[in-house]
Amino acid sequence: MRKLGLIAGGGDLPIRLAGQCQSVGRPLFVIRLKGMADPALQAFDGIEAGIAELGKGFAALKASGCEAVCLAGVVKRPDFAALKPDWRGLKALPGAIAAARRGDDALLRFLIGEFEAEGFHVEGAHEVAAGMTLAHGPLGRLAPGPEHMLDLHKAFHVAGEIGRLDVGQGAVVCEGLVLAVEAQEGTDAMLDRCAGLPETLRGTPQARRGVLAKRPKPIQEQRVDLPAIGVATVEEAARAGLAGIVGEAGKALVMDHDAVAAAADALGLFVYGLEPKDLPPDWAE
Amino acid sequence: MRKLGLIAGGGDLPIRLAGQCQSVGRPLFVIRLKGMADPALQAFDGIEAGIAELGKGFAALKASGCEAVCLAGVVKRPDFAALKPDWRGLKALPGAIAAARRGDDALLRFLIGEFEAEGFHVEGAHEVAAGMTLAHGPLGRLAPGPEHMLDLHKAFHVAGEIGRLDVGQGAVVCEGLVLAVEAQEGTDAMLDRCAGLPETLRGTPQARRGVLAKRPKPIQEQRVDLPAIGVATVEEAARAGLAGIVGEAGKALVMDHDAVAAAADALGLFVYGLEPKDLPPDWAE
Repeated sequence: MRKLGLIAGGGDLPIRLAGQCQSVGRPLFVIRLKGMADPALQAFDGIEAGIAELGKGFAALKASGCEAVCLAGVVKRPDFAALKPDWRGLKALPGAIAAARRGDDALLRFLIGEFEAEGFHVEGAHEVAAGMTLAHGPLGRLAPGPEHMLDLHKAFHVAGEIGRLDVGQGAVVCEGLVLAVEAQEGTDAMLDRCAGLPETLRGTPQARRGVLAKRPKPIQEQRVDLPAIGVATVEEAARAGLAGIVGEAGKALVMDHDAVAAAADALGLFVYGLEPKDLPPDWAE
Repeated sequence: MRKLGLIAGGGDLPIRLAGQCQSVGRPLFVIRLKGMADPALQAFDGIEAGIAELGKGFAALKASGCEAVCLAGVVKRPDFAALKPDWRGLKALPGAIAAARRGDDALLRFLIGEFEAEGFHVEGAHEVAAGMTLAHGPLGRLAPGPEHMLDLHKAFHVAGEIGRLDVGQGAVVCEGLVLAVEAQEGTDAMLDRCAGLPETLRGTPQARRGVLAKRPKPIQEQRVDLPAIGVATVEEAARAGLAGIVGEAGKALVMDHDAVAAAADALGLFVYGLEPKDLPPDWAE
């Protein structure tokens, strides 16, 4: 397998991907983005670089023999005025700022273009993470019942539309009502907000209702990042009184299959992998 | 002018509409929805009724000579199991529950149908409130500049799409990035959330950036309720560091023109009425 350069932002995903490479014997070099990457990544061969130090990053990736790269983890839009770019970063800066004004999606497409222009093949997190994505069907013991189908399909549809608008990758629907949509605040904050809504609108741990859907944005996420479902996601969804979680099969990362399944079983939620072709005619895409 | 039956939910809007009727000499009868309508509405001729007491409401409206009705104010989706319907409400209940499962929009269309079936003409809040809606162009002294146009157009577009999906009526965009989208939490909670995002993503009272857009849902809101812009909206937007607010001209209620304009001027925000035909080709609808 060709050596992978992992450009690591915040959160668990880069650690999981690095672990996956190690477990399948794939050679790896990690660029830890300053102020974002988890210190645990220092255990892998690599360097730390600022997000605008493109020249330093490209040089290190080439010197270490990487032909492919994967951009993974949480990268919050930078404060462009406070960046300290090197010469290569400076060259890219006007393009990056212009792209950022068109949205997250455009900024990430721009960054992919910069890596490709340097001769790197850009892999999606789901390619690096083969075997770590949500399979088609139920993950744990529980499967959604007929009473969950409206919410499951509608949440899946709304999350897809939200992604198409470059807004975010998550939505919560309960009895046909869209309770919340995720933008910059992230999934946890969205679920917290659901837990704070009046009980007439949502489920409770005693009487679970409603479904969280997580889907990749149509362009961005499939190359650069994928929605992730972890134990914390299941626990937050449980606190919000939801009946279950739906993700796009093959396009949602499951951070630890056994632990996620065990948490879902213990808390009484389903976690389900749906394919767009499973949608009924009402919601067909 | 034919007598208006005002079906009053929570918030300021019903009070404003009642005041508007009074000031133009339009006869009025108010049904104050139990647990929702503001006590100030007791100053007007009317009765209190539970949301499922349709028979009581219809009878009172007819006895008082109302030919037209307007449903206005905040009506949170009821806990159907806890309702105490009268005979007419009981007849409508299965249809209401089925409609509610398809979304807010469907539930409100169902209620409009029930009033129409009883022979009432249903007026939109913007029809009752002629002269209270946002005009085309700037409301206060400040107008958006070229640097605000991307955010203004994108926020307007996203708010429209969010409404089409029956999600909500508001969105905040800053430098092309969608910061937040409103669902069941309401505009105030959405703006609070924006104020809590990292400063690199948003504006500040010292350096305002970003725009809040409020638009009616395509079907529901124009008959039953309209997005409202009041002094509180301007103050919340100011706290979130936004540069301004855009609404759909003729389709957003301004709760008190002079006070809203004064607040916007004092805080340094623009409040602007846009028409869909003003959108540039990129965002054309």
